[in-house]
Amino acid sequence: MIDRLVIFGVGLIGGSLALALRAAGAVSEVVGCSRSAANLEEAQRLGVVDRWTTDPVQACEGADVGVLAVPLGSMQGLSQAIADHWPAQAVLTDVGSSKQAVIDAVRAGFGRLPRNFVAGHPIAGTERSGVGAAFGTLFQNRLVILTPADETSPLASERVAEMWRATGARVEFMTPAHHDHVLAATSHLPHVLAFALVESLARMSESDEIFHYAAGGFRDFTRIASSDPVVWRDICLANREAIVEMLDRFKGDLEGLREAIARGDGAELEARFGFAKEARDRFSNSMQVQLDQ
Amino acid sequence: MIDRLVIFGVGLIGGSLALALRAAGAVSEVVGCSRSAANLEEAQRLGVVDRWTTDPVQACEGADVGVLAVPLGSMQGLSQAIADHWPAQAVLTDVGSSKQAVIDAVRAGFGRLPRNFVAGHPIAGTERSGVGAAFGTLFQNRLVILTPADETSPLASERVAEMWRATGARVEFMTPAHHDHVLAATSHLPHVLAFALVESLARMSESDEIFHYAAGGFRDFTRIASSDPVVWRDICLANREAIVEMLDRFKGDLEGLREAIARGDGAELEARFGFAKEARDRFSNSMQVQLDQ
Repeated sequence: MIDRLVIFGVGLIGGSLALALRAAGAVSEVVGCSRSAANLEEAQRLGVVDRWTTDPVQACEGADVGVLAVPLGSMQGLSQAIADHWPAQAVLTDVGSSKQAVIDAVRAGFGRLPRNFVAGHPIAGTERSGVGAAFGTLFQNRLVILTPADETSPLASERVAEMWRATGARVEFMTPAHHDHVLAATSHLPHVLAFALVESLARMSESDEIFHYAAGGFRDFTRIASSDPVVWRDICLANREAIVEMLDRFKGDLEGLREAIARGDGAELEARFGFAKEARDRFSNSMQVQLDQ
Repeated sequence: MIDRLVIFGVGLIGGSLALALRAAGAVSEVVGCSRSAANLEEAQRLGVVDRWTTDPVQACEGADVGVLAVPLGSMQGLSQAIADHWPAQAVLTDVGSSKQAVIDAVRAGFGRLPRNFVAGHPIAGTERSGVGAAFGTLFQNRLVILTPADETSPLASERVAEMWRATGARVEFMTPAHHDHVLAATSHLPHVLAFALVESLARMSESDEIFHYAAGGFRDFTRIASSDPVVWRDICLANREAIVEMLDRFKGDLEGLREAIARGDGAELEARFGFAKEARDRFSNSMQVQLDQ
């Protein structure tokens, strides 16, 4: 049970976490903190937070658990703002999509990495953003990855894991570097490709007409290109090394396909498409099993 | 009203067309023809066809309208097989995703382009294939593009347009070359990218683990990579010039994004992601309006 939960950054993820914990009866009081009073008023109206403040220092008062749910680029500044005020016994975690960068930012902001800070990342989301898009079942049957550092207190890790389990999520642990490598492949690279594809098409002189003839496959393929540009700017900056590595690997594979198309090599195209289809069908089936559990 | 409709290739598209026309009361009798008797038996069991034959020559008998719904690579061979048997007054059309290639294949197979052949392409589909995936509402509120050649009879074009309108689709006309250019952008390029991404990830040594951490965004992004490898092999071969052109354009834009990520240029990343998001949101809203109509 969490007495006072403080959500820094009440958007899709922070808001959904608050809603899920309230629905589970796992929290007594939720305090929201962000830069925008309008955002916080909406959060209160939607029943996401009990009360709010735009002052991070004030938000620290009496906190039991804190969640940094701001864009990656704001993590260091926020950490610095609360460093001298965050209660030493209170647990702090985050929901950022790049873990080494968050650990570095929190360490820089606090001047050291607090033993009670546990870096975390729920593998869930939609292309929408803002507290209006939050919903309490977002994390059900989804994975949450925690990446404690060497300094991190095991008790704090367990407390954060319990919080996530209360939302219906499953919790796994790994190193920050491994998380960043895996997420570059499954999340960051696809987002960059989706943004790049829509940009390519939108820059074509007949772009209106081109989008007019796009269908459901295109809509699904580009859904993630409707994601928040600031969030994804920060992810690309925070995890740039792993993302560039994945992009270069992908470019090599794409170049091979382009050559096979250009020279009309049907056997190679069928083999490569067939290999991809099998892998994708396997993934899809195992994901369905996961969701059905 | 169509008296006897012959569907060559009774899969997702051919089967859905038959179901839609039957539901609309726009056809008296549907004859299925493909290489596989098992496929045709299933089609009959599912109520997609009234009767069937594996012999294309026999399928021509008494035909009123014929639809070539086989993979692009089979169009020429099939055209050649029916060339001397297709009734001169019967209308013939197709559903291929590349139009100049089909027109060339039919012309080569028949020895000349029949005046009653009207090339067409319904912009609809799912990642599934086979007659078991067919459903009668697939074309409702979707676009069908017809690309008549100079030789094509206007009466035949109108007959095919009427057939598609009976399924709930809207019909538009354009040149084959323009169709191929537009579809390379909105359909063929995304499919190649989705296949390439899944292939890239599946080839990584820890691919099982990587797919384990993939979420809904990845599932949507890669749905089209579960499409039929033979169909997409043939599309890439048939429309290779336009696809290679789009791939090269995309690779240029992707390279620009990669450079911006590598040098940590947050302003450029935010601007480019923002531009893409706006375009994608516009497309999504207009598509919703389309579907709601």
